[in-house]
Amino acid sequence: MPLSGIRILDLTRIISGPYCTALLADLGAEVLKIESPESGDPVREQGVIRDGISWYFANYNRNKKSLGIDLYSPEGKALLARLISACDVVVENYRPGVMEKMGFGPERLKELRPDIIHCSINGFGDTGPYRDRPAFDFVAQAMSGFMSLNGAEDDPPLRAGPPISDLIAGLHGALGITAALLRCKQTGRGDSVNVSLLSSMVSMLSFHASNFLASGVVPPRSGNDHGIAAPYGLFQTSDGQVAIAPSNDGVYHKLLDAAGLSHIRERPEFNTNALRMERRQEIKEIIETRTREHSSEYWIQRLNEFGVPCGPVLGLPDVFNDPQVKDQEMTITVNHPGHGDVRMLGFPIKFTEAQSSCRLPAPELGADTQDVLMSIGLKAAEIEHLQDIGVISTTRCTSA
Amino acid sequence: MPLSGIRILDLTRIISGPYCTALLADLGAEVLKIESPESGDPVREQGVIRDGISWYFANYNRNKKSLGIDLYSPEGKALLARLISACDVVVENYRPGVMEKMGFGPERLKELRPDIIHCSINGFGDTGPYRDRPAFDFVAQAMSGFMSLNGAEDDPPLRAGPPISDLIAGLHGALGITAALLRCKQTGRGDSVNVSLLSSMVSMLSFHASNFLASGVVPPRSGNDHGIAAPYGLFQTSDGQVAIAPSNDGVYHKLLDAAGLSHIRERPEFNTNALRMERRQEIKEIIETRTREHSSEYWIQRLNEFGVPCGPVLGLPDVFNDPQVKDQEMTITVNHPGHGDVRMLGFPIKFTEAQSSCRLPAPELGADTQDVLMSIGLKAAEIEHLQDIGVISTTRCTSA
Repeated sequence: MPLSGIRILDLTRIISGPYCTALLADLGAEVLKIESPESGDPVREQGVIRDGISWYFANYNRNKKSLGIDLYSPEGKALLARLISACDVVVENYRPGVMEKMGFGPERLKELRPDIIHCSINGFGDTGPYRDRPAFDFVAQAMSGFMSLNGAEDDPPLRAGPPISDLIAGLHGALGITAALLRCKQTGRGDSVNVSLLSSMVSMLSFHASNFLASGVVPPRSGNDHGIAAPYGLFQTSDGQVAIAPSNDGVYHKLLDAAGLSHIRERPEFNTNALRMERRQEIKEIIETRTREHSSEYWIQRLNEFGVPCGPVLGLPDVFNDPQVKDQEMTITVNHPGHGDVRMLGFPIKFTEAQSSCRLPAPELGADTQDVLMSIGLKAAEIEHLQDIGVISTTRCTSA
Repeated sequence: MPLSGIRILDLTRIISGPYCTALLADLGAEVLKIESPESGDPVREQGVIRDGISWYFANYNRNKKSLGIDLYSPEGKALLARLISACDVVVENYRPGVMEKMGFGPERLKELRPDIIHCSINGFGDTGPYRDRPAFDFVAQAMSGFMSLNGAEDDPPLRAGPPISDLIAGLHGALGITAALLRCKQTGRGDSVNVSLLSSMVSMLSFHASNFLASGVVPPRSGNDHGIAAPYGLFQTSDGQVAIAPSNDGVYHKLLDAAGLSHIRERPEFNTNALRMERRQEIKEIIETRTREHSSEYWIQRLNEFGVPCGPVLGLPDVFNDPQVKDQEMTITVNHPGHGDVRMLGFPIKFTEAQSSCRLPAPELGADTQDVLMSIGLKAAEIEHLQDIGVISTTRCTSA
């Protein structure tokens, strides 16, 4: 596996950080998830709980080990120092400055492990006027300009359904860490990596940003229409809607041919994309008179035969029954001892040789405390003492 | 830089692939962008063109070199083979099977370069019933279930404004390639990496997927409300709206205190998140009676002081003037000889040691053909001949 032999100390909770470290765990890293001995990651209690386990927690914490350690206690801090020395990477999603307050600022980290890679994931970045503000996915979606582009033109700015700020920050973190590991292998040097929800979302503005910066023209929300192409959007069929996306003149012509509208090719008022943008509603209606005559299934097959990108708008039940989604194994089933089988999302990055798999189900709180501490050299008596004084927990319900 | 010394052959065009290779170029890789000698990447002509350059193209092709090569000709294919031998990574976003048809299937790639890393980015994956379908961002948003979660409850399913399927597939590709490079450094072995627009978007379904898989309950579109938390959303102020995101009971209490509504804490009908979800509109109105009394700026300052995540909904002009976005250098200005200064998005992954920078502006079509071909051992006469017969272009307008 790509990250075999890499040990990651994971101080994160909720989504952005645990998603980042789940990506790294799926790539083969050994991830040590440090949790408070009493309650652990709050996500353990969030989302739908089935047979005593949150499937949301199970999804984002597969392939990880859990250590219950009270990081407020001096003994817990001493343990953390020993663990850092034994790890290649430390990931945290505290607010900026918290690591310093805990006694683990950049200098200390380097002292403990000269080639450490430290990744911080936070709301606004390590510097700047908002660095100390509390952050949340929704706020980053709002402040990044993303919401100003999401929604129909006459509707208010709209948050995306999934927590994409968290997820994209997590992806950026995983990419930054993996890149830093590659550099470390070649130079022996560690590095510090920071990603933020806000910058992650700003970097998703794509051509909207480029066009605005070049022209000063503020892009409108365009709903299901494309900002710079027409026809485009959802088209009514006899039994539903189909998303059709002709990306250029060639595909536009294929769409006309497939719809039996080849004669429209000659119409000068629709001759260029710019002209069609001006008559967006008109060209859409012409095409819809045809698409309404047959079912969605008919059109999806016919348009694909003609080379026109299109597809149905699926809800989650149809997504997870879709033959392509199944072929790509985008759900997997993982047995969690004591909780039965848990279905979760699969692996979106497919390797031919170094395939990802679920080697470990999401851990019980503190399940790996003892094994990991012994592996870094603690004696059984020492571990027992730490448990007696409440600094560590080794299983969910038996912390002293 | 993390990817210094890594040479990437880039056969991609439009967004998903060029974004993937831009991420790798920003991390220090040498990216050789192969373009058709006549017209190059279609994005050269897309978006707002200013002083003869598409700012959209400039953004996604910084730090790259351009080679104009006609890959339909036998001489062009022979050149491609020599280039592959000299590269660590090949990235392409053709439809599945096109590389084989061109004569560059997996066996041939390995023959040319035993430890090659081959990354394919496509719509639906390398296998499965839809593998040969044409793909497009919008179609992946529709078929992945993402659109079923995006939008207000009573509105139709909605595409996200930015092309997030392309972008997330590009991110997955960059992560997969970097991970494969790390494995190659340790084992000497190459690998094949595939990412698709569809699987990338399915993997963004997050807790919506987990909750659905656990319960069978189909999550509704919830607009700006949160699927599992209340109060939450956009709140009217005296001069606009503020996004407020209290993620748990503790933050809910802070919100009440900040709004002078501490007495609401005692109200049993709002005592738990589950109860508030049932009376979502009621609790929202109670809070809005207060937020309407002051400006957005007032509330953003006050709520942040109390530790409540919140922020304004910004349009692009305000985003790019925002002091935090400026502090994080999320736009940069790059001089393009002949085209003046181009503003573009900055780097969302911040390294302390191995900082990203714009080492090269986006290249003119074919600007680096000659230099790169000489660097892999072609003689000047050979290059001149290839140019004479139209197989390569060395500058935009002088192909034979």
